[in-house]
Formats: sequence, structure tokens, C-alpha cells
Amino acid sequence: MTTETQPVNRFERRRAKTREALIGAARQILAESGDTSVSIQAIAERADVGFGTFYNHFPSKTDLFDAAVEEVLDEYGQAIDAYLTGVEDPAARVAAGVRLSVRMVESHPEVMKILRRRGLGHIHSDRGLASRALEDLRHGVASGRFAAADPVVALTAMGGSLLALVDMKFAHPQIDGEEAAATMAELMLRMLGVDAREAQCLARAPLPSA
Amino acid sequence: MTTETQPVNRFERRRAKTREALIGAARQILAESGDTSVSIQAIAERADVGFGTFYNHFPSKTDLFDAAVEEVLDEYGQAIDAYLTGVEDPAARVAAGVRLSVRMVESHPEVMKILRRRGLGHIHSDRGLASRALEDLRHGVASGRFAAADPVVALTAMGGSLLALVDMKFAHPQIDGEEAAATMAELMLRMLGVDAREAQCLARAPLPSA
Repeated sequence: MTTETQPVNRFERRRAKTREALIGAARQILAESGDTSVSIQAIAERADVGFGTFYNHFPSKTDLFDAAVEEVLDEYGQAIDAYLTGVEDPAARVAAGVRLSVRMVESHPEVMKILRRRGLGHIHSDRGLASRALEDLRHGVASGRFAAADPVVALTAMGGSLLALVDMKFAHPQIDGEEAAATMAELMLRMLGVDAREAQCLARAPLPSA
Repeated sequence: MTTETQPVNRFERRRAKTREALIGAARQILAESGDTSVSIQAIAERADVGFGTFYNHFPSKTDLFDAAVEEVLDEYGQAIDAYLTGVEDPAARVAAGVRLSVRMVESHPEVMKILRRRGLGHIHSDRGLASRALEDLRHGVASGRFAAADPVVALTAMGGSLLALVDMKFAHPQIDGEEAAATMAELMLRMLGVDAREAQCLARAPLPSA
């Protein structure tokens, strides 16, 4: 069996490359303007592939943009996961997740620009980081690490707060993102019932390395 | 002196009416699809005004959509303010503001659909509700009602959390919005350092009437 991520022959490799070029063009558009009313012709030109090729890969423009957003969500999740592996305490995971996300505004600007524009609709996604964050919240409440609260509403607050912070950092690049992220992490931990002093310490602890 | 909100003669009244029709069309578009790539011709048709009239009122399409979003932000702020007048405790204001906003998903769907799409960029606006919420946060920190925290980061968390909750309510209309909003209010108060038990009571207290 072959999959698009492990193409086995020249035909499959070319096909995967074309698909990736189309998704790459869609990502650029989402990051630059977010204007998805652009024509398929313009997308194909940007991807440097033939116009007719488009429909071999995606039934519609919407499907392409959706695939691009999903790829970005997966990349974001994988980048954060690489740091959080081995961090067991749900409170430490929340604090590090917030701080690492804001760092990604500078290290992964395209990913974070797309999240800024499209993330709101994916906070309750059942894939990627959203579902693992929900697991962390459930686990934290069940173990008593976090105070009782509906984990879905807590995830809503965390996701929305994080997107608003990412938006602020893009809109005002001169702000101290590290400090703002540490303060946000502290607020999230207090919200989850972590003692104020411990929240302050955890939010400023050394970050895990990837 | 005349202003556009208090036109004194027939010419001014007609002019104000045309402007309002254009803004109304822009609001519909923002609420329905958010697709601002629509042509000026289509906007004029929807507003039932002549194409040439457009430029008597707005130098560009962007200016029209910006004016529509500002009008919506003002309406939102005024609707919440009408309820919060006379509520002095910053914690009670925060809790009621969250809960009233979620109610507006049903009572003011157009306003809230536009906020859902465009609100993220206006959390730190120096007009309307955002600036008054920032005042409440500063006041609450200064008086000791809230724990110390950068009020701008706290406003970011509150604004983002609220938008994410509004998004969730639109995406899943079957959820109990009242209960989710009360839980969110409780989380926001805990985040601001209000004692957990008091946060729970305040978040479920009777709402002020307009």
C-alpha cells in the first residue's frame, strides 16, 4: 500500500509534490491576506502547476483551503508536542503550551498567521492539539490538580485567550511577547484553580526543550 | 451645526438614509459570509442605492466595512452598558458582561455574527466596550478586588475567551448557552483572583435589568 506521505514511485512522488505545491500556495494566501475569493487559476499559478491539475487533487477551492488549515493545525500540534513529551503535570503542560505558542509567532510566522485568522473555528476540533489539551484538562480535573469546571468551557477560554494573545503580538510586535505569555499562563492556571503563588512560579519556570 | 446622526433638512436626511443603507448592506454581508471581496456594484444593489452614490459616502469598500464594524462595536457596547449602569463592583460587571454577551447571540444575531468574525482585532480598541472593560480591570486591580495582573493581558484573555464562547454557541446552537456563560464567568473571576466560592455565586447571581 502507498500513502501520499510515503510515495513509492516517480508518479506518486510527482503527484505528492504537486499536491504539496497547491497546499503551499493556499497557506501563503491564508497567511498573507486570508482572502480565499482568489481564483483557482491564480492559486495554480502561484503553485506553479497547470490549471487543469488542480481538480486531480481537490474537488473545490474550499477543500484545498481546508486541507491547508488542517496541515497547519497538525504542524502546530506537533511542534508543541515535541516540547511537552515527558511533561506529566497538567498545570506545567498548560503553562508551557501557552508560552511556546507565543514563541511560535516569531519561529513559525506562517503557521501562526493562519491560526490567528482561522483558529477560532478549530478550538473544539477533535484532532491535533485541541483534543490533547482537552485530555489534559479532563485529567487535571479528575486528579484534583485543577478545580472542578466544565473542561469544554475551560478549553474554550484557553483557546480564545491564546488566539487573542497571538493576535496582539502580531498587531503590536514591539510588546514583550515572553512576558505577556508568562502573564497569560499565570492567568490560565489561576482560572484552573492553581494557587496564585504556584501559578506565578510555574508560568516563569524554565521551558522544556524539544 | 449638523451631524450625520441628527440631520436637519431633507437633503441631510436623505444623505443619512443612503449612508445607513450602505452600512446595513455591509453588515448583512459581514454577518452572512464575511466575504468582503464582493463588488461595490453588488453592495449598492443590496442597499438599493445607485452605484455612483457609493463614493459620496465612502472613499473605498474597506472604509465602508470598517464603518460597519465600528457601528456594530458601538451597538454591542451600548447594549451591554444599558445593563451595567449602576453596577459598581468590577467582579459583578465582568460576570454580567460575559453572560449578557452570550445572550446577545440569540437577541442580536447580526451583531454577534460580525463580532465572531471581526472581534479578535478589536479587543484592544480604544473605543466602546473594550476601553471600558480595561477601565474595570484597572479599577479592580487598583482597589484590590482583583489580584495583581497586567490589565492588558487580562483584557486579552477575557476578550478572546468571550469570542471563543460566542463562536462555540453559533457552531453548536444546541448547547446550553446560559450555563456555559455562567461557567465562563466563573472561570474569568477565578482568573482575576476572586475566591472560587464567591466566583461561583457571582456567576449565577440574577442579571441586572436594562
